[in-house]
Amino acid sequence: MGQALAGAFLKVGHPTTVWNRTTSKADRLVAEGARLAPTVGDALTAGSLTIICVTDYKAVHELLSSSGIELDGTTLLNLTSGNSAQAREAAQWAEQRGAHYLDGAIMAVPSMIGTAEAVILHSGPQSDFEAHRSTLDALGTVTYLGADHGLASLYDMAGLAMMWSVLNAWLQGTALLRTAGVDAATYAPFAQQIATGVAEWLPGYAQQIDSGSFPAEASALETDARAMAHLIEESEAAGVNAELPKLIKAMADRSIAAGHGGEQYPVLIEEFSEPGDD
Amino acid sequence: MGQALAGAFLKVGHPTTVWNRTTSKADRLVAEGARLAPTVGDALTAGSLTIICVTDYKAVHELLSSSGIELDGTTLLNLTSGNSAQAREAAQWAEQRGAHYLDGAIMAVPSMIGTAEAVILHSGPQSDFEAHRSTLDALGTVTYLGADHGLASLYDMAGLAMMWSVLNAWLQGTALLRTAGVDAATYAPFAQQIATGVAEWLPGYAQQIDSGSFPAEASALETDARAMAHLIEESEAAGVNAELPKLIKAMADRSIAAGHGGEQYPVLIEEFSEPGDD
Repeated sequence: MGQALAGAFLKVGHPTTVWNRTTSKADRLVAEGARLAPTVGDALTAGSLTIICVTDYKAVHELLSSSGIELDGTTLLNLTSGNSAQAREAAQWAEQRGAHYLDGAIMAVPSMIGTAEAVILHSGPQSDFEAHRSTLDALGTVTYLGADHGLASLYDMAGLAMMWSVLNAWLQGTALLRTAGVDAATYAPFAQQIATGVAEWLPGYAQQIDSGSFPAEASALETDARAMAHLIEESEAAGVNAELPKLIKAMADRSIAAGHGGEQYPVLIEEFSEPGDD
Repeated sequence: MGQALAGAFLKVGHPTTVWNRTTSKADRLVAEGARLAPTVGDALTAGSLTIICVTDYKAVHELLSSSGIELDGTTLLNLTSGNSAQAREAAQWAEQRGAHYLDGAIMAVPSMIGTAEAVILHSGPQSDFEAHRSTLDALGTVTYLGADHGLASLYDMAGLAMMWSVLNAWLQGTALLRTAGVDAATYAPFAQQIATGVAEWLPGYAQQIDSGSFPAEASALETDARAMAHLIEESEAAGVNAELPKLIKAMADRSIAAGHGGEQYPVLIEEFSEPGDD
């Protein structure tokens, strides 16, 4: 990923200094015009922005704690994968040493970097982000989320939960339909249409959550629950996995048991906001 | 729902006969120009197509088995909610009595009927569908799925699984982000963008399923599984429900245990196609 990020800067002609523990990993980038920093300390002072993308936050701390490292006055953008607590801790640690610190998350695989398909999330002080926004645009679709350094990681996780859920629902439907001889390619456009259509409801449904009021304008949760029972029956009768259908119904049943059967689906936010039974 | 269906036909000026066990329920429709059939048998012979939309398939059988009912030569479209086995049984029963039989599923609430938003799925003999397609267009976005009478119900269930999954993933993300003070309206457009973007992958991913080959072109399942662990950690640390994240990871872990960690996500079709542990 580090190579992809540096490569994207070089492609737009941005002066770029690189460092890697294994120097030879930088050979291709140096051939493309990158300057090779001999040390981490040198890399940190080479430009006005230092992007860090390593294995984990432990590796970040080890690198930045080495002797001879001066963080005061530097701006760090940490794109290393981690969680929101690690991002907040790293921000506090870096800021105590006089650094400007932004935390980020890359929602892309390396081959996407440098294209609009690569969504890169940023959180931390807005002024630090704005100071480097035009530089960062070289990496992909660059988004600023807010001052809380944990936001990039939280949005990343929320987005991945959506990604896996769309894929799993599609697999559930594909498995069901294959038992009736429908191939995956025939079903996929229908699944795409439903996912896209339901996604359009989210901004409106969000208003119900923010207002804490869930009138059953389109349908009531207890009506959904009856159809959920049919989904379980169909899955079991077809001999396909029924665990996802059962989880869907279990969440709804709990909300109905709590007295919300006559309200609309977003009332389930109350179940999703509690630790649960397991 | 019956009132909404008949109302949509009347709105486009289609001659419409209605019958309901409770005659007064037809009052509004009669005022709008519908003819009230005194008996089910009369309703069945009033036009070239009879649409049935009642509580369940048991009610369908009771209505059509009453004395004096002649099904020979009629065309029935059954839009009653049920499962694929009930649809196939009803088709066989009706065809043995000389009827043309189509089974359908309404992916809409009554207020949507008569608009493009109402998706209405049909399965059964294509010639019977085509004979009445222009009439049915009055109801909404009318789709023909295939000769197998069970298809309308199966697509309906698959589509609902997608609907609930998009909503649940959005609720999971909303619950996570609310712990960081982000309101639902702020997060919703991001969730919408991810759901729509991932839905675009489905036709391509379907080709992997249909070919039975899952090369990790974008990323490998074992990479996903590491991020799934982070989603569980974030959810637990934030004190929100972690059951959906755990189910997501459990399915992936099973596939990795079966030797598919180096393959791409759609290889999970093998887990979704098996009954599972529960």
